[in-house]
Amino acid sequence: MNKTTVSKATLGRLPLYIQYLQSITDTNTSATNIAKALQLGEVQVRKDLNSVSGAGKPRVGYEVLELINRLQNVLSICNPVDAVIVGAGKLGKALLDFNELKNYGVKISAAFDINSEKCKKTSSGKKILLIDEFKNYCTDNNIRIGIITVPQGAAQNVCDMMVNCGIIGILNFAPINLIVPQNVVIEQENLALSLAYLKMKI
Amino acid sequence: MNKTTVSKATLGRLPLYIQYLQSITDTNTSATNIAKALQLGEVQVRKDLNSVSGAGKPRVGYEVLELINRLQNVLSICNPVDAVIVGAGKLGKALLDFNELKNYGVKISAAFDINSEKCKKTSSGKKILLIDEFKNYCTDNNIRIGIITVPQGAAQNVCDMMVNCGIIGILNFAPINLIVPQNVVIEQENLALSLAYLKMKI
Repeated sequence: MNKTTVSKATLGRLPLYIQYLQSITDTNTSATNIAKALQLGEVQVRKDLNSVSGAGKPRVGYEVLELINRLQNVLSICNPVDAVIVGAGKLGKALLDFNELKNYGVKISAAFDINSEKCKKTSSGKKILLIDEFKNYCTDNNIRIGIITVPQGAAQNVCDMMVNCGIIGILNFAPINLIVPQNVVIEQENLALSLAYLKMKI
Repeated sequence: MNKTTVSKATLGRLPLYIQYLQSITDTNTSATNIAKALQLGEVQVRKDLNSVSGAGKPRVGYEVLELINRLQNVLSICNPVDAVIVGAGKLGKALLDFNELKNYGVKISAAFDINSEKCKKTSSGKKILLIDEFKNYCTDNNIRIGIITVPQGAAQNVCDMMVNCGIIGILNFAPINLIVPQNVVIEQENLALSLAYLKMKI
């Protein structure tokens, strides 16, 4: 099954399903049970599971261990992808130690900064390195994903550097429309926007 | 014009437009100029501006100061809304000092935590208060928006407390499907998901 057929919304619910399935002792379960336990819509749960694991068997539902396995495979939890951060400010450091990432098959292996005073190990043992080491680190560790948490004015330069170092997927927190070659995928993250949108909806 | 007609994607570009318009010295400009300068699609820019400010005049385009004013009004930049955070961990503290929020008409006025050792002023002068003070603070300051940055296991309790204190819009960073009354709006934020989705797309 091609993993890219899973929508972002579905992907976001998979860790909830895994967590629930790991908490129960039944051998089999159904979309109905899962929906009820997680207070989600049954149609939605059925659709989600169907898109990653096919339909459950009539009167039997899903075999729990097999379903966990399939969901974990979609998220590649047992084989997480390494990502790096450039910009070890407050947000960068918060992300570096962000525990939830392991539930999505991503591991942030290091952060980089231009300020040598920020270069040390964090409380969780992750490294913050000087930006001069970025290229070698990415080559040595075959890094494909980068996260930009530098100020707006520095973001395009950091992006260009990432692309030059072989990174092909960039999560950008800087409020700027980054220009990249066609083979590079950008995900734009905007924490302020979610608040502004919320403000507009209430 | 009803502000809720603006899509989240459009809303996210408005600060870019404002920033560009404030940087130029012309009296008038056009969607074409703005699109070129920001390397955005012309159709998109035209549609965005149209939805918040009507169409530009033929051969004249938009009057720059008036357009800035309208864009700022949509974002209520001159009259920002106060929001509070519960959970003063790394992410909560990063958000508390997140400068970009002012460009979206939101001001985080305080954070709250159960741990009294976290209760102090941040480097930017923002207050972290003990959770016991939450109810009075929200009542005294007429707080309508809350941000949840506590661990998953505490999120529903925090959410219930917020609702009891009159909060009607919640931005939730905890990976849990929160249950709220119908009049309360939830925006779910999932930083791990954006990385997982990026990983899937590359």
